[in-house]
Formats: sequence, C-alpha cells, structure tokens
Amino acid sequence: MARSDQFTVGIDFGTLSGRAVVVRVSDGAEVGSAVHYYAHGVMDTRLDAGAVALAPDWALQVPSDYVDVVGTAVPEAVRVAGIDPAQVVGIGTDFTACTVLPVLADGTPLCELPDYAERPHAYVKLWKHHAAQAQADRINELAHGRGETWIGRYGGLVSSEWEFAKGLQLLEEDPELYARADLFVEAADWIVWQLTGRYVRNACSAGYKGIYQDGRYPDRDFLAALNPGFAGFAEEKLAGEIGQLGEAAGRLTEAAAARTGLPAGTAVAVGNVDAHVTAPAARATAPGQMVAIMGTSTCHVMNHDVLVEVPGMCGVVDGGIVAGSWGYEAGQSGVGDIFGWFTHTSVPAAYTEAARAQGVSVHEHLTALAAKQQVGEHGLVALDWHSGNRSVLVDHELSGAVLGLTLTTRPEDVYRALLEATAFGTRVIVETFRDSGVPVEEFVVAGGLAKNALLMQIYADVTRLPLSLIGSEQGPALGSAIHAAVAARAYPDVPTAAKSMGKVRTGAFVPDEGRSQAYDALFEQYLALHDHFGRATTTMRRLKEIRRAAVAADREPAS
Amino acid sequence: MARSDQFTVGIDFGTLSGRAVVVRVSDGAEVGSAVHYYAHGVMDTRLDAGAVALAPDWALQVPSDYVDVVGTAVPEAVRVAGIDPAQVVGIGTDFTACTVLPVLADGTPLCELPDYAERPHAYVKLWKHHAAQAQADRINELAHGRGETWIGRYGGLVSSEWEFAKGLQLLEEDPELYARADLFVEAADWIVWQLTGRYVRNACSAGYKGIYQDGRYPDRDFLAALNPGFAGFAEEKLAGEIGQLGEAAGRLTEAAAARTGLPAGTAVAVGNVDAHVTAPAARATAPGQMVAIMGTSTCHVMNHDVLVEVPGMCGVVDGGIVAGSWGYEAGQSGVGDIFGWFTHTSVPAAYTEAARAQGVSVHEHLTALAAKQQVGEHGLVALDWHSGNRSVLVDHELSGAVLGLTLTTRPEDVYRALLEATAFGTRVIVETFRDSGVPVEEFVVAGGLAKNALLMQIYADVTRLPLSLIGSEQGPALGSAIHAAVAARAYPDVPTAAKSMGKVRTGAFVPDEGRSQAYDALFEQYLALHDHFGRATTTMRRLKEIRRAAVAADREPAS
Repeated sequence: MARSDQFTVGIDFGTLSGRAVVVRVSDGAEVGSAVHYYAHGVMDTRLDAGAVALAPDWALQVPSDYVDVVGTAVPEAVRVAGIDPAQVVGIGTDFTACTVLPVLADGTPLCELPDYAERPHAYVKLWKHHAAQAQADRINELAHGRGETWIGRYGGLVSSEWEFAKGLQLLEEDPELYARADLFVEAADWIVWQLTGRYVRNACSAGYKGIYQDGRYPDRDFLAALNPGFAGFAEEKLAGEIGQLGEAAGRLTEAAAARTGLPAGTAVAVGNVDAHVTAPAARATAPGQMVAIMGTSTCHVMNHDVLVEVPGMCGVVDGGIVAGSWGYEAGQSGVGDIFGWFTHTSVPAAYTEAARAQGVSVHEHLTALAAKQQVGEHGLVALDWHSGNRSVLVDHELSGAVLGLTLTTRPEDVYRALLEATAFGTRVIVETFRDSGVPVEEFVVAGGLAKNALLMQIYADVTRLPLSLIGSEQGPALGSAIHAAVAARAYPDVPTAAKSMGKVRTGAFVPDEGRSQAYDALFEQYLALHDHFGRATTTMRRLKEIRRAAVAADREPAS
Repeated sequence: MARSDQFTVGIDFGTLSGRAVVVRVSDGAEVGSAVHYYAHGVMDTRLDAGAVALAPDWALQVPSDYVDVVGTAVPEAVRVAGIDPAQVVGIGTDFTACTVLPVLADGTPLCELPDYAERPHAYVKLWKHHAAQAQADRINELAHGRGETWIGRYGGLVSSEWEFAKGLQLLEEDPELYARADLFVEAADWIVWQLTGRYVRNACSAGYKGIYQDGRYPDRDFLAALNPGFAGFAEEKLAGEIGQLGEAAGRLTEAAAARTGLPAGTAVAVGNVDAHVTAPAARATAPGQMVAIMGTSTCHVMNHDVLVEVPGMCGVVDGGIVAGSWGYEAGQSGVGDIFGWFTHTSVPAAYTEAARAQGVSVHEHLTALAAKQQVGEHGLVALDWHSGNRSVLVDHELSGAVLGLTLTTRPEDVYRALLEATAFGTRVIVETFRDSGVPVEEFVVAGGLAKNALLMQIYADVTRLPLSLIGSEQGPALGSAIHAAVAARAYPDVPTAAKSMGKVRTGAFVPDEGRSQAYDALFEQYLALHDHFGRATTTMRRLKEIRRAAVAADREPAS
C-alpha cells in the first residue's frame, strides 16, 4: 500500500495561471494548494516587449511565466500543506494544449534571445492562437487529396491549433526563426525539461496535437507538398523520445530542486494535457466511462480497448489518456460560454435585479426559473453552435439558432433551451461513439458546470446515462499528482493509483424515464435541425460569408 | 369643387376606444379630433355584468360603448374644430372586424335584454375572440372536402375570427340565444344602423368576414353539413342589403342627431373596416399601390382590376376596398409586437439604461445602434412567425426563429434581424402577388411603425419598391371622413375624394440598389428557411404539440 506520509505535487498550467496542489499518495487528500498568475498573461493584441502589434487571432505567452509557477506556487503549496518537502516523492504536470514554442537544442526559448524579443513568432503560441487557419486548411485538403490514413484518426480534420499548422505558419511567416529553432516543443514537455533536464515528448500531446500515429509522423513527401521548406519539420523540429503517461520523464535537477524547494532526484512524470489528465482524477479510466470536462467548452475523453475511427471525433491516440489503451477525445466548442453570452446579452433588467435582490447569480436565477418547467413546456429547440461544431460535424462555420419563439417566450425558456441544446450535442457525440462500436456507459462530469444541478439532471435525462461527478475542484492538478505517484512507483499504474487517489460521486444523477421520453421528442427535432443545417444545407456557411463580405465592404453609408 | 366651408366627421372604432375627426371636405385638413375610451374595454376574463368567468381566448365588448363614442367624441371633436355643426355634411365610420353581435330584428343587442345580461354569447364578439377555432377548423376541412370554390378567395383558409366560425360557436354553445337572435351583425353595420335607423351590410365586412362572394353566401347544404341547425345561418342571420363603400347607408335620424349634435338628415356612409378604409386616406386606391397598415401586426390592402386567386392571401372581395375594384387583403400576424416582445424580454439593463440616459425609447436606442451596420454584418437571419404566419403559408402553428447566433451577437444585431425578417415576410407576400399576376408597384405605409426610418428604409431596400408614407396620424378616421364626403356627394367617388382629401409623402424612401443586392443574399436564406419550416417539415408544429403535451401533463415533478 502507498504510504500515508508520502505526497506528490500536481501542477496544472492553465491559460492564465498555474496551480500547484500537494496530494497525499495513500488517499488523494489535497492538503495544500497555491496559484500563481502569469505575469504576461495572454498576449493577444501586442507583445509586452517593444510595441509590436499582433494580428487578430494571435495568442502568445512567455515561457518564463511557467517557470515562475514552479518557483512560487510549488513551495507555497508545500508550505500551506505543512509537510516536510522531503515527504514529496513525485511531481506531475499538465498543460493546456496545443501550446508550443520554438527553442534551441538546449531548451532555450527563442524569445529569450535578445535579438528575437520583438519577434512574435519567437514566443509560445497558446492553444487558442487561431492565426494558422489557412495552414490548417491546406493540411486538411492535402491529407484528403492524398488519402493519408492518419486524417481519419482526427475525425477527418486537423485543427489550426495544432503543431503542424502552427509550425507551418512559423516557417512561412518568419522563415529565419523557423531555421533558427532546433525544436518546436509542447509547453507541456518544455516545463518537464526545465524540471528534469531531459526532453521527452508525452504520448498525449504527440498523438492528439502532433499527428503522431502508429509510431510515426506524417512523412516527408506530405510535408514537402505543403511547402518544400517544411519537409523536415517532423524529423527535425518534433524529434524527441516519446514518453508514456505515468512514466517518469526524469528526476528533479539540482537547479530545479533549488527553485521548488523539493529534494533533487524527485521523480517527475511525463507531461500531460489538462483535459486528459482529469480522467484518473475522477477514477474514470475504464472503457465506457466518458469524462466530460465542462466549462466554457466541453472536452470529452474516454478509453477503449481497440482502435475505431469515430466520425468527427477530435482524435484517437494509443496511450493518449492511459498507457495501453486507445484514448478517444471529442468536444463541444461552446457550452458554458453560450450560457454566459446569453446572461450578458439577452436577459432584461428585471431579471438581473431579481437575481441581485436574492443574492444569487443571473445563472442561478434563470436556472431556478427554468427548473420549474416540464420538459418541452417552453416549445423551443436550440442549436448549440455559437462557436461552431467541433465534434461529429467538425464545422466551424456553423452557428447557433433558436426555434419555436413566440410572443410568450421568456428568458428562462431560452436559457433552458440552450442548456438542453448542449445536452443534445453531447447525446449526438455519445450516440456517434456508440454507433461506431465504442459504447458509453457512464457520464462523468468535471469542470465548473458540474455545480448546476438542473444542467446535470438534463444531461442524465437526455443521454439516459448515469451521471457521476468528480470529487475534486482541482481535477487536472489531482490527475497530475496521480501521475506523479505512478512515476514515483507508489502505484504500479495510473488506473490503480486512480482507485486510491481519484475522487468521484458515482451516480450523482440518474435519468428519469418519463423525462427521457419527453426529451426523445425534442431530441428528434434537434437532430433534424442538426442534420439539416449541419449536413444538408449551406445556410449557416452562407451567413458567415455574407457577414464577412459586409464587414469587408465598408464603402456605402450604413442604414 | 368641394366647398372649403364643408366638413365631414370620420369615426374610427378601435379595440379600446373610438376617435372622431372633423375633416375639411375641400382639402382633407383635420381640424378637430376627440377620443372616447370604451367604459367596458375588452372583457377577456369575465363579464362586467355578474361574475361570469370567460374561457381562454374569449374577447367580448359592450355595444353601448360604441354609442357612447357617438355621443361624446363626435360633439367634442366638432367643438374642438370650432365649426358650426351645420357645416358637417357627412358622417363615415370604420370598425375593427370581424366584430359581431347577435341582435333582435330592431337592432337591440341581446346583451341588453335583462334575461341575457349574464350570458357571454349575448355580447359583441371582438375581432380577437379566438375561441371558435374548432368551428373554423371544421369549416375549412369541410370546404376543402366539398371543393367549395369560395375557399380559394380566402387563400384556402377561413379564420376563427370571422362570422361563420363565431356564428357556429354561438349555435353550438348557446342554442337558445342563437334561436333568439334575429340577426348576427357586424358592429361596423350596427353602428350605422344606430345612426340611420337602417341595416345595411357593408361590402367590405360582408366579403372579407362573411364569405359573401359573387352575390351569395355558402349554401344551405354546406351549412347543414356543419350542423343541421346551422343550415339557415346565412339566409336568416346574415340577411341584409349589401351597401357599396362610399354610398350613403342613410341619413342621420332625429335621435342620432340629438345624440351627436349634428343636423338630422346628414348623410351617413356605409360602414367600413379600419384597415381597408385607410387606403384612400393614403391616396392609394389604384392597382399596384399596396397599403400596409403597420402596427403590432400588418394588414396589406390593394386594389386590382381583375380577380385572381393569390395563394395564401387573407381574402379578395369585389368592392372590398373601393367599389368597382377587386380588393385584395394580406397580412403578417406579428410585426411590431415581435419588436416589442424583444425589447421587453431580451435586452439587458445596460441598453435600457443607455436609452433612459439618452431620453429615448429602447426601440429608438436599438434602432440607432442597428442603423450603423452594413447589410448582413450581423450574420443573422430570423423568421418572423412568433404569432404564426397569416399570409402565404397560412399556418398558426409556425413560430419564430433566429439563426446565425455567435458569442459576439449583440442585442442590436438580433433586433435588426427581426426588423429585416418582417421585411422579408412582406417581400414574400409582394412576390406571391406579383407571381399570381397582381403586380405591386408602390408600398404605402400607414400605422405606428411608419415613424421608424431604419425600418422603412429596410422595407424599401428589401422589396425594391418605392415607399410612401401616409400623411395623417389618423388614417382610418380620415378614410372614414373621405367616405362621408362621397356619401354626401361632395365627390363623385372615393378615388376622386382621396385625391383631394388623402395625404401621402410619395417616395419617402427609395431602394438603394447596393443594399437591395446585399439583401437578396439574405432573402435567399430567409426563403430557404421559410420553405423548409413552412412547407417541407413539421418541426414547428411538433414543437407546439410537445409544448401542449408538456403543459397538459403536469403530473411528474419538474426539473
């Protein structure tokens, strides 16, 4: 058994901050935690260095901010925990992805070279840097044109967020920097490199973001066809040993030990991605357990024994979630942010004032009103595509819709219809997995939306799945601490560690058959709209085209 | 020439009040006006007499309220005008329709008989009494089943608001009162009866609301098939001489002279309907001039030389607008009320506060913001069916929709999309008329929405029609005064009188070809949605069914 006097540290690198959590190895108790906000945050309009403006859709970060998390949040979390640093037996990390940076062979980020401080391409391209869409489009077109087998592993579409699109953008927009970069590395692996002195590519990022499938990357011919100068991208810039999740990437260096206050030689786990690392934190590493990290958007991850190509999934990767299993990822690009948009743009003063008077948020007020309704009573059905559709349809030109409006439609009616629309979107994903031979038997929710009981019950009713809730507010950090425990050999593997250290309220919500049947009727209408606007027609694509043309043609007087 | 020392009085009987306007015969100058609000207003939950509750969808009025308008507003308007009552040469009236009441042979309303004061069916059924839908459904089904030719004159659908549905409801729900009623009369004709002592059915109501076509009503066989007791409805209860619009129904009786303060013997015009009487007030009685009375809903009226059956029109009636022409009517069931619903339910506090700070209405604030946009910039398209679709599709089970929503969609975007949706709805009507051989060449707007310049420009751009505005705030009353002048023989016919007395700003808005082309692209998408949801699918009908089932099944605990 794992010893109750041993601890690991999980560090979750998010979009705006990094959080370190100290976790007891024997039972997963979270005994101390600290957050450090990145000094440079997200640079999306200009570089902090100089006055260099950034084009739309850019999003950069500064790698030294990550190192500051290691040097501040980690010792602070250990101090808060009140443990002896010598009791820490392992360190695990997880990161946003795909978040990548160009570095020298020794790991020095190009942005830290004085000559390049004012060159945007020298910095970390954050996951939500979307300025490589043109490159992604070419990659997809070429992959389908050439019949590349790997494109099927990504539901037929590689994202502009991923390594190849961002790397190709680097080459084509700043070829000097591209040439100077010895490696193009995931921040997830770069931070582990800073801790251990070793560069190991984690199997999760490499697979989901680096098109690493069946032991290889897209070949030279393919890359050369994109751009002759790109032929060696995979061999040269992505080169690196692949580390399986839960393995030790190495041991804490003397320098890193001095920075963190932890003992040199402490095991450091292979890097990981924030969504995927959450599965063991929720004790959900078995096939059939779909983990949904529900926040502004939703990421679904699930293991399965065999490889299947599920239409429109984000990706399937061998060992992408747990070593030895095929890890499946799907996603909904808009969930909580749709609800947030609605509360900010579409709720009248009477509602915001009533919420304030009751001391609750507008979300809580609308939810309480919506909860009084019978299923279908609002007469509405909505499409949850305000940010496009990431899984199954894989079309970012899609947009949101609300149908069934009457002069008696109230804000809580539309709000509930939007909650339901995201549940219907989940059901489409679940059914697509099921129909492809990857059954889903349990829906395990992590993330901020888990606290909305109405939303959770709707998901259970709509999907007819028992719904479990993760038992930690720091799912990714806990998941990293679990990986740290395995890297430290306190447990033989991640699923075993998850059994002791993960936390879940199993069956927190169960479907009600009456409501499920009522939702079947609404879902039938949702599906009809889904297929009509997502597959049969170009209406939404045309609306985007019309919009772009209108914005571009700013010549005539408005009216 | 008409004499400048002669005047007529137009009386417009609306839903909540009646308004009298004194108009100079020579030039249509409105020299005095007064309003009288009905003491009983609209009774839609209970009768004022006794404590008799009314079922949903009922809407009743008290006929003595109309008489009070004659006795108060008319003398007050004459007093305000500062003219000698002897200068009044004619009286004209218009009414909401179909607004009907059961009366004795002498015109006494059944509700004024003490025995019947607590019987809902004894009262005036207001136009918006919608409790005869079941009867209307049976009339429509039977008409189509028997291949009745008259059903085509009403776009294939008779409304629950009209005489036959309301009469059949009376028979089936209160047969004693049905038997006691000697006549079932339009309030438009009843008030003329009170003024003249003569019962004359105006051609407009008789045609549009009474299925009077080609000189006859639906036959006994048809009516008997609806209900054996209904066989004589037309012959017995609707019997009455038909009066053409602009004719004198008679002369002011001594009793009515005493009540109004006007000279006995003054010419009184045949009754009329508020929408239809507006056409001459806007000098728009020629073929090709479509008059749109735009308020909470829109009613379109237009003359044409020949009879054509336009798909989905509300009705076509010989002499229905101007004697000697075929009068066409179409309508949009939701227009201003959709905009009103949006401002009340979907606009956040920041907008209502900004409007208040600027001293403008929320409508004006949203309109100002929406006016800054290029056509199509919002990326949205909406369906204006929040109250169903009255013309072309003729389906009250349809509902509203908004498509193209993103996380950057703002209230002014949706507001503008709703304005445009109603313009697209108008274009569908205009094109349907045109495609049926009834060309529309000018769009003449009356009603409260005429003051929204952005909306007017959108209508001009979307329809590619020059748009004129009526020059009076009291279009119906002015139209009635015009009819009064013709009844008094100051002019030979209504079109001639309209030339002198009607008021219009011709070409107040003209289409901009650039914007019209941009709208073509959006209209194409609107039309695709229109046909998909209005014709090809049952989505919206199903949503209504689901809603009704949910409201009915209030057994299980809500969530």
